[in-house]
Amino acid sequence: MDEQEKPLSLVLFSGTDDKLGAAAVLTVGAAAMGRPVNIFLQYYALDAFRSDRIRRHRGLSPEATPDLARHVLDHHGDHWSDLLRQAKEIGEVDIQACALTMDMFHVDRGELDPLVDGVEGVAAFMASASEGQVVFI
Amino acid sequence: MDEQEKPLSLVLFSGTDDKLGAAAVLTVGAAAMGRPVNIFLQYYALDAFRSDRIRRHRGLSPEATPDLARHVLDHHGDHWSDLLRQAKEIGEVDIQACALTMDMFHVDRGELDPLVDGVEGVAAFMASASEGQVVFI
Amino acid sequence: MDEQEKPLSLVLFSGTDDKLGAAAVLTVGAAAMGRPVNIFLQYYALDAFRSDRIRRHRGLSPEATPDLARHVLDHHGDHWSDLLRQAKEIGEVDIQACALTMDMFHVDRGELDPLVDGVEGVAAFMASASEGQVVFI
Repeated sequence: MDEQEKPLSLVLFSGTDDKLGAAAVLTVGAAAMGRPVNIFLQYYALDAFRSDRIRRHRGLSPEATPDLARHVLDHHGDHWSDLLRQAKEIGEVDIQACALTMDMFHVDRGELDPLVDGVEGVAAFMASASEGQVVFI
Repeated sequence: MDEQEKPLSLVLFSGTDDKLGAAAVLTVGAAAMGRPVNIFLQYYALDAFRSDRIRRHRGLSPEATPDLARHVLDHHGDHWSDLLRQAKEIGEVDIQACALTMDMFHVDRGELDPLVDGVEGVAAFMASASEGQVVFI
Repeated sequence: MDEQEKPLSLVLFSGTDDKLGAAAVLTVGAAAMGRPVNIFLQYYALDAFRSDRIRRHRGLSPEATPDLARHVLDHHGDHWSDLLRQAKEIGEVDIQACALTMDMFHVDRGELDPLVDGVEGVAAFMASASEGQVVFI
């Protein structure tokens, strides 16, 4: 398998808007190059994909100073969920919710945004991530 | 070397219970697939493996809202240190403390939990991590 | 291509002194092994490379307890920017600023420390990172 065709696998743990933004930009970049992208939603990132709150402001990393935070919030870029939607249109992007976190946070499959393709355990994710690169955000 | 046999290398930097939990779950998943796992303990993650505090509550990421934090704390899963112990029983999991952090935090080898297999420098870790994937948590 | 010759690609997002220190140590380790290192500066990490503030204290991760923070601040190691300079002297280390973050934070090329080799978009970074490992810090 050519290196370029190997998947990029993202474990999304954080659910702040800045980290989700960084993850969405990497996803768009990889999808534009024709690489499959596997996303696994854990903890606070999973919470961010619940349909009742996916467009809500989720705050920034604690290190955002008031000055930098203002720049992030004033920036007129696409919302991270729109970037992920675009990445799905141009490439092969699969978004799975972590079964363990679903159970921990008492989230049902029906509460997740349609961007999420399914629910799987860590073993299934690790199998899909055995090739290519794995990034934890 | 088959992709499946390549190691998963984790640089553990954070020492909060949620990130250590996420790391332990990835370790169990990789070990169950027969992949060797190399763990390198830096900064706050190293502090978490001192035998006098390994079972102590270490707090969660700052983005945990009171509601989500309650779900994390109420979840009756195994402690991350027990998950790592199980991963060592089913697979090849090597846990090394970062020599530089040991020096910085004035930690002696004898203060570390038996889960830790040794102390090494970053060069030795990078050599063991030259193949497979590297994840920073 | 031999595994050892494949690049280590670091996406630096955080701009706290402890995470930048961890990233610099990994860079030195990889460069010392003869591996090329590609660094992509996003968000708060980009802010840290502005020449008017690169030596300024940037704080630590919120999980640093007062006791651990004191040890980090008292440690007489090289500053992360000096470690990166050393890594550039011994190996092939390329540091690029994320074009999107430059725009978001209204930073001009001339405001960046000479350690930064250029400005590029995520597509160019993903192309250079298609082989080897990708680490998000």
